[in-house]
Amino acid sequence: MMIIMKSDATQEQIDHVIEHIKENGLTPHISQGVEATIIGAIGEAHNVPTDRFEGLDGVEMVKRITQPFKLASRQFHPQDSIFPLDGFKIGGGDIAIIAGPCSVESRVQILETAQAVREAGANALRGGAFKPRTSPYAFQGLGEEGLEYLAEARGQTGMPIVAEIMSQSQLDVMLKYVDVLQIGARNMQNYNLLRAVGETRTPVLLKRGLSGTVEELLMSAEYILAGGNGQVMLCERGIRTFETATRNTTDINAIPVLKSLTHLPVILDPSHSTGHADYVTAVARAAIAAGADGLIIEVHPDPAHALSDGRQSLKPERFAELVRQVAAIAGAVGRRIAPIHQTQLKEA
Amino acid sequence: MMIIMKSDATQEQIDHVIEHIKENGLTPHISQGVEATIIGAIGEAHNVPTDRFEGLDGVEMVKRITQPFKLASRQFHPQDSIFPLDGFKIGGGDIAIIAGPCSVESRVQILETAQAVREAGANALRGGAFKPRTSPYAFQGLGEEGLEYLAEARGQTGMPIVAEIMSQSQLDVMLKYVDVLQIGARNMQNYNLLRAVGETRTPVLLKRGLSGTVEELLMSAEYILAGGNGQVMLCERGIRTFETATRNTTDINAIPVLKSLTHLPVILDPSHSTGHADYVTAVARAAIAAGADGLIIEVHPDPAHALSDGRQSLKPERFAELVRQVAAIAGAVGRRIAPIHQTQLKEA
Amino acid sequence: MMIIMKSDATQEQIDHVIEHIKENGLTPHISQGVEATIIGAIGEAHNVPTDRFEGLDGVEMVKRITQPFKLASRQFHPQDSIFPLDGFKIGGGDIAIIAGPCSVESRVQILETAQAVREAGANALRGGAFKPRTSPYAFQGLGEEGLEYLAEARGQTGMPIVAEIMSQSQLDVMLKYVDVLQIGARNMQNYNLLRAVGETRTPVLLKRGLSGTVEELLMSAEYILAGGNGQVMLCERGIRTFETATRNTTDINAIPVLKSLTHLPVILDPSHSTGHADYVTAVARAAIAAGADGLIIEVHPDPAHALSDGRQSLKPERFAELVRQVAAIAGAVGRRIAPIHQTQLKEA
Amino acid sequence: MMIIMKSDATQEQIDHVIEHIKENGLTPHISQGVEATIIGAIGEAHNVPTDRFEGLDGVEMVKRITQPFKLASRQFHPQDSIFPLDGFKIGGGDIAIIAGPCSVESRVQILETAQAVREAGANALRGGAFKPRTSPYAFQGLGEEGLEYLAEARGQTGMPIVAEIMSQSQLDVMLKYVDVLQIGARNMQNYNLLRAVGETRTPVLLKRGLSGTVEELLMSAEYILAGGNGQVMLCERGIRTFETATRNTTDINAIPVLKSLTHLPVILDPSHSTGHADYVTAVARAAIAAGADGLIIEVHPDPAHALSDGRQSLKPERFAELVRQVAAIAGAVGRRIAPIHQTQLKEA
Repeated sequence: MMIIMKSDATQEQIDHVIEHIKENGLTPHISQGVEATIIGAIGEAHNVPTDRFEGLDGVEMVKRITQPFKLASRQFHPQDSIFPLDGFKIGGGDIAIIAGPCSVESRVQILETAQAVREAGANALRGGAFKPRTSPYAFQGLGEEGLEYLAEARGQTGMPIVAEIMSQSQLDVMLKYVDVLQIGARNMQNYNLLRAVGETRTPVLLKRGLSGTVEELLMSAEYILAGGNGQVMLCERGIRTFETATRNTTDINAIPVLKSLTHLPVILDPSHSTGHADYVTAVARAAIAAGADGLIIEVHPDPAHALSDGRQSLKPERFAELVRQVAAIAGAVGRRIAPIHQTQLKEA
Repeated sequence: MMIIMKSDATQEQIDHVIEHIKENGLTPHISQGVEATIIGAIGEAHNVPTDRFEGLDGVEMVKRITQPFKLASRQFHPQDSIFPLDGFKIGGGDIAIIAGPCSVESRVQILETAQAVREAGANALRGGAFKPRTSPYAFQGLGEEGLEYLAEARGQTGMPIVAEIMSQSQLDVMLKYVDVLQIGARNMQNYNLLRAVGETRTPVLLKRGLSGTVEELLMSAEYILAGGNGQVMLCERGIRTFETATRNTTDINAIPVLKSLTHLPVILDPSHSTGHADYVTAVARAAIAAGADGLIIEVHPDPAHALSDGRQSLKPERFAELVRQVAAIAGAVGRRIAPIHQTQLKEA
Repeated sequence: MMIIMKSDATQEQIDHVIEHIKENGLTPHISQGVEATIIGAIGEAHNVPTDRFEGLDGVEMVKRITQPFKLASRQFHPQDSIFPLDGFKIGGGDIAIIAGPCSVESRVQILETAQAVREAGANALRGGAFKPRTSPYAFQGLGEEGLEYLAEARGQTGMPIVAEIMSQSQLDVMLKYVDVLQIGARNMQNYNLLRAVGETRTPVLLKRGLSGTVEELLMSAEYILAGGNGQVMLCERGIRTFETATRNTTDINAIPVLKSLTHLPVILDPSHSTGHADYVTAVARAAIAAGADGLIIEVHPDPAHALSDGRQSLKPERFAELVRQVAAIAGAVGRRIAPIHQTQLKEA
Repeated sequence: MMIIMKSDATQEQIDHVIEHIKENGLTPHISQGVEATIIGAIGEAHNVPTDRFEGLDGVEMVKRITQPFKLASRQFHPQDSIFPLDGFKIGGGDIAIIAGPCSVESRVQILETAQAVREAGANALRGGAFKPRTSPYAFQGLGEEGLEYLAEARGQTGMPIVAEIMSQSQLDVMLKYVDVLQIGARNMQNYNLLRAVGETRTPVLLKRGLSGTVEELLMSAEYILAGGNGQVMLCERGIRTFETATRNTTDINAIPVLKSLTHLPVILDPSHSTGHADYVTAVARAAIAAGADGLIIEVHPDPAHALSDGRQSLKPERFAELVRQVAAIAGAVGRRIAPIHQTQLKEA
């Protein structure tokens, strides 16, 4: 960490910063420039927030040299993280395709959708049992009943289950049923929840918040990793901007940026990042072309009757076409969609 | 709710929408325009999310006539909500000033700060015991020990205590000590937490999320109100925009907008909304001039040694000057800073 | 256009709106709903701005049924617009690749770059002679001298020239030398300039402004089309958001959105939309995968000595690799990079 | 300027940066830190853009010590700039109130409005003769005829005239009639126009662009100042954010930030920054409370029939109430509305 002093900083202010660096367990190193004095703070600086120094008199700016995240950083872990899911691997080259409805609405709906997306080439099944809804009056999900139906769908298709956890109080019930714990965009900085899933050994799909920066997303991953759970996949799902032609703005830049900063797998959710079924396929192709490790897609057998997110859900046949197009793009960048595991094929 | 059909919608699509309106417990009403058919959906429409119709074939747009929030709306509750706190009232004309450090760091620090802000004219004391921090390696607060010190500070000064709750698991311990439960910006859409505080009868200070719209803030308040807890004050604390000259962008427009949409009290946090001690006083004056019902201000006896938010914290003497200036502005708009209650004066 | 009245609008207010519709040359059509009265305004409504009605008493909202742009709209012109440039076509299937330095800095630099990008597969040469710079103290371009060097580069390589026009006063000199007039992001709403290029018959490359919406971009195109110049290509170049990990945020959604709304060709500038050479190739691939009709890329033989935009410029060999990867993606979506014209090959 | 090298930068890269600093007319100064080498670049660094160094191999970051603007900076010009307008002064303590319609629509409309706003306490008259409109089909202003009416209104009331210039080609006709040249938000970075008004000696009202940062606004002012025209007042008029409850988001923070960075007067336009007549007065009060030097307000005798911006225009009696409330706020911060000059009173 470097503390750049104002050009008119006094010796007393400089001495105070030096003392403060020592109080924080770091070693000061002074460079006397012509325009400004710069004081390095050497040591385990990622443990020390910059605002510890920004408030000091005479300080112009504090600049980190090392990133504030460590376990998530590619600097300390150059190889891609790969973690096996029942039947396939996330990360490491193959493209994972997670698909399913926004919400589990009924037994029939989820079993039918699971079958359809498996046939179209999906590797894993998504479906919400606990739903974060802007309105307290909106459908809030089926709860444990929904999880039971998801488990039944897994039994029929062999696909692992991805479902959202909204609160640490749901952890026990979630762990009974799901293979991947999803942290939704609204909870990206729900630190108690991040810590709770960090203590499990179940893979986590961490979604970027609507106004979360790339760095903040990595810091939230760091919470989970610091708990000992190394199986975190990051999910870009669109950020909130001034543009209203689409529900969110897909930050496609985030794909290569994240791939360069971290070893964790990066996937994209074009259903939420566009908000319109008509744009999902084009943006799914773009994600794979940009280097994403997977996709998570909303599919509903009858979008017109979906209890949530109908406008952005694909019908199964349209999803099948998406998979075909994505496979072509994957080929063009030397990758492939993860093959469906034998167990899955047999069980199904 | 009005469903505007595309100009080329078929009769079959129109019929399907009509049927769908009935399935959702509403009554359809058709207006055949020249350019488009418009179908009204009459009834308890605030219970039905618009995305229930947006996914239907042939639908151009869905427009609410009534607001999606009801309990928070001024339409149904024209009078300002007022709720008494120990010693003064929030809402209803007088200006509340809540002040204190970002984090409770030690017994001495909080007792000293409490005394100082009370003398300067604050009505309530803020201080974080559980701290949401971007980094898992940053100071996370003193926990219950911090709450004990806050309670001791209340004993000495008579000021009610405002502290942040990060998780429903902290509810019991928080209720033992605090007078106002603060929901932080990152948790504005943590619905499980909103429901949990909605079941208490303790006042809630609900902060707007970094990318929360005014409408979403009101929907989050609606969660709390729907639980039976009517004592919610809303807090603008800056939104995230492209501008980097300040930490956040104070959305001063939100003050008159919220005052027109809701009966709930509205306060502003200029410490977070600017992020720089140098700008806090000017923006505090602006908030009161725009019609805010109160302020929440970070004050630290020694900002240079604050464990968090040092750059935006005021020293007590600077805070005292802020109170004087805010009092002058309050006078100019026919209001006043809430007088310190006799009990407080006696106890102190 | 539909004018939705407030639920408590009076008959007098409704009558006033009706009269106002007639004054604006439109025909009113009233639909009496249960919750609200809706008044259609039929006729050449795209000529009438909505704010003509939004200020009227009793009006809740004004909603366009037809888009505010007409000449740019795919509704009225379903086929893709194609316009021939010297040697190849923009639009209509093939991918155009425009490449070259940010600024023309010297005769040697531009001739060398032109040769290099042509060999790597570029179809057209970009280079700025008049440079919009944030600082009045920064290099402002070589002016007409720069245009002369560009013309010489065209003579050597056969590639058409794309250069930015900053002011209508530069129109005569620009038309002497360039094949495509570029309107930069900062001038997207410089209406006098848009009108001036609309009166020429030279193709225009119109860049989206930093905070321009998709609709505003199309309205700016409409200015040019309304002048009689139908050869407009639209360019997404990143929008300004809160994210600072990249210079701008590439709005990849805008590609399919624009392709559905307009018949005009759509290209992407990944150099500006990312701001970092390391991310340009990934985002270029994404653009083509999403359906873009071309790319505009900054290439500099020695980025370290570029007088502007060095950080985001590719060296020629890295650009050649980009072209190879983009060609593979183009193949995967059934397209190809526009072949270099015989004339170009002969002349070169 | 400080160039911070990457921790693994080679000696060759460091030498290259040093050489490059010299080529740009600056003097290098090397500080060898433990984590990184920092190279100062001393001299007239505000003339050298940072991107001249950001592209060099081994460079981590370039940080300015001195601001990139010089003539606009308070560092070099600590006293507030004051410039006299016919009848009153802008800057220096008194509050200027500029009012009038969005567009000059007719002789009667502007004369009537001028009389009304003068009586209500305005110091200057605004009115657009050349109008930047998103749509080519919208009313584009009366042109010179509008300027003639404005001049007649000045004759009747003694108020100086503020009107927007959209292009340097309008400069001659504008200078015949107006007292203050307004540069609109869309033209904040129209550098040819900035240079053109910089060569005049007529005061300029420079509006912030929708996505212009505070620093970019000051850089645009620097263009005008560099031309020799020191009479620039800056105008915050709302920025574009994700919030849609208001037309723009008033960046109230920008008032104290600009007042600390520059000596130029700073005014606010609450009509555009809110977009709704109902919120204009509250935000006008906030601006003065925050330290603004003036206001520019849209007033129309009959907003319902305004050809543009009807929704955000105040009727004269509502404007008069705004002036009364603003005067009270001004008093509370030790200021006053600039008194109407004797000449004005006599002439009127």
